[in-house]
Amino acid sequence: MSVTAPQGFEAAGVTAGLRSTDAPDVALVVNRGPLMHGAAVFTSNRAKANPVIWSQQVVTDGRIQAVVLNAGGANCFTGAFGFQTTHQTAEQVAADLGISAGDVLVCSTGLIGVGDETFRAKVLSGAKAAAAGLSTDGGENAANAILTTDTHAKQVVVSRDGWSIGGMAKGAGMLAPGLATMLVVLTTDAVIEQPSLDAALREATRVTFDRLDSDGCMSTNDTVTMLASGASGVEADIETFTAALVEACADLSAQLQGDAEGASHDVNIEVIGAKTEDEAVEVARSVARNNLFKAAVFGNDANWGRVLAAIGTTDAEFDPYDVDVSMNGVRVCTQGGPDRPREDVDMTARRLHLLIDLKVGGATATVLTNDLTHDYVHENSAYSS
Amino acid sequence: MSVTAPQGFEAAGVTAGLRSTDAPDVALVVNRGPLMHGAAVFTSNRAKANPVIWSQQVVTDGRIQAVVLNAGGANCFTGAFGFQTTHQTAEQVAADLGISAGDVLVCSTGLIGVGDETFRAKVLSGAKAAAAGLSTDGGENAANAILTTDTHAKQVVVSRDGWSIGGMAKGAGMLAPGLATMLVVLTTDAVIEQPSLDAALREATRVTFDRLDSDGCMSTNDTVTMLASGASGVEADIETFTAALVEACADLSAQLQGDAEGASHDVNIEVIGAKTEDEAVEVARSVARNNLFKAAVFGNDANWGRVLAAIGTTDAEFDPYDVDVSMNGVRVCTQGGPDRPREDVDMTARRLHLLIDLKVGGATATVLTNDLTHDYVHENSAYSS
Repeated sequence: MSVTAPQGFEAAGVTAGLRSTDAPDVALVVNRGPLMHGAAVFTSNRAKANPVIWSQQVVTDGRIQAVVLNAGGANCFTGAFGFQTTHQTAEQVAADLGISAGDVLVCSTGLIGVGDETFRAKVLSGAKAAAAGLSTDGGENAANAILTTDTHAKQVVVSRDGWSIGGMAKGAGMLAPGLATMLVVLTTDAVIEQPSLDAALREATRVTFDRLDSDGCMSTNDTVTMLASGASGVEADIETFTAALVEACADLSAQLQGDAEGASHDVNIEVIGAKTEDEAVEVARSVARNNLFKAAVFGNDANWGRVLAAIGTTDAEFDPYDVDVSMNGVRVCTQGGPDRPREDVDMTARRLHLLIDLKVGGATATVLTNDLTHDYVHENSAYSS
Repeated sequence: MSVTAPQGFEAAGVTAGLRSTDAPDVALVVNRGPLMHGAAVFTSNRAKANPVIWSQQVVTDGRIQAVVLNAGGANCFTGAFGFQTTHQTAEQVAADLGISAGDVLVCSTGLIGVGDETFRAKVLSGAKAAAAGLSTDGGENAANAILTTDTHAKQVVVSRDGWSIGGMAKGAGMLAPGLATMLVVLTTDAVIEQPSLDAALREATRVTFDRLDSDGCMSTNDTVTMLASGASGVEADIETFTAALVEACADLSAQLQGDAEGASHDVNIEVIGAKTEDEAVEVARSVARNNLFKAAVFGNDANWGRVLAAIGTTDAEFDPYDVDVSMNGVRVCTQGGPDRPREDVDMTARRLHLLIDLKVGGATATVLTNDLTHDYVHENSAYSS
């Protein structure tokens, strides 16, 4: 399963004592080749964590041999000491594996501002243990070692003729990616050129993780990275590969949505009839970030008025008095007026399909979000994260 | 008190049965002159309610003689029938008062999509009763008749030498004005030219209501209107008048913040050291709309990491690694690292002062918001509004 499903990869997940429980908290994923192609996208938040600043340099040459990840501390806004911690982690992993530190990507997740000497010592000892424990079936352990408030591991495998894509992800709160999202590691044994790998990753994240907006809060540590080993010996054409990667990323996005902090509904906001795809995303996102609509969903209330009030704040091209809104197949609003009664919408299932028809063009997009619940408020007020 | 404090105004508040309780729900404010100057600003939401569409036409000639307001239904997305209801309401008030319908501003608040025949009949009967019950001390009744989920009336009087400004406001949820906000009626007996009145109103709303952002959700019905009777016979210079109006609007804004749905904290986000005032507002608003920060405040947690993660999403000019953050006078973050322990911040009081120093310029702005609480989720999921 997971990142070790494709050939040419080893992984490990160990417990270094970074989390308050005895759960695993340091993961390592290593590409054994023969190809060493890598690509990555990062948060567009200007407040970037130290591992993001480091990893942006690592990926510039398109080569990544290892990814080391820790939970239990974001190492963000931890000053020069925090950056040195990231650097030392990469150096130690490189020494243990006999590779260059410049090929070691580092990811951290947890509380912002955490990154003191105790943190450094635990990360370094965890990374050493992980390097010693690498195996070709270590993917599941690695997937478990990157969780924070997640309730379970998120993994995916997509297979094509002769090669496959594996992936693992974490993410539960602060879930509104800018360019990338959360922590995601994807692997493939397909034979593919690095520029194609990079293009496929950017296209896949654009239409999947970038359209997951659980709580409107963009993280400082988001990183999606992709490693290609070429170990299958089978060449993948770019179209097939991109389609498979979109499938893998969409699967992981849905898993992240389904485990979002405190959520009781998974809301898929589909906008059709938009002039452009960007405008479809803009309209869908305005609803995904509307606390009143999200609270109504929690209350199983098909409150279409809050949908129109949300999309009215956008600059997208449409006539507010010629928009149709349906929920779970029931059209509750048409042309600026009520249609079928809100009570006709059965909202008891976890999944809610909200369809907004702007009636001005042929573009469409779907944004995934969640409802706003008591548990979300509780998780984010009672505990620091 | 309230809108009848200045000379030349009469008001009334009556019960027409629009709300589920027997609370008053229709208000009328009339300017008896000699001046009939009026000005108004409206929601910038493109999804505008019928009364907003009507009132935008009323105010174009700078003359307003009466404002009729109802709670218990927003008359928004209620089709042509809903617009006719607004029109008929203005016509009836005009007939009862012996004035032109084109000088009657209409405001509605309540649930979007509500505006059927029952609604129309109740609004018309309420408006008739209000016209029959006008008095020079009816301001308080009017202020009570525009409330929805508000727990108490919001009123203000600001006096200057020989003239005064009175005002009333409602607003509890969907509280994030674009150009105007909520329902606000302001009156003055100062002698002032209409263009000056208009300019003063725009300036005052820009620095007060526009910087109140309780829950990030912009209403479809927001209207702030200002009537000048000139009945004091005392001329006001524009600077003095604008300063007095800012004082009145700031007072009403603080009252709205203090009664926001479900809130347990009033958070004043002050940004200093910004390059421009617009950027100061942008930075402050990014924090006001960050659910994670707002939930942390509910939990009395001085979570400065969530502040930096929020402002990092803006385009404002600053270095994320040279920003200082203080809460209630305790500097918890300086230059991209922790400063004093978060536990040192006493957050038990309702008021929280969050100070963000961007250190790049001399511009400043303050945005008022609230925390994200269980009661907010409860009010907006258990009841339609």
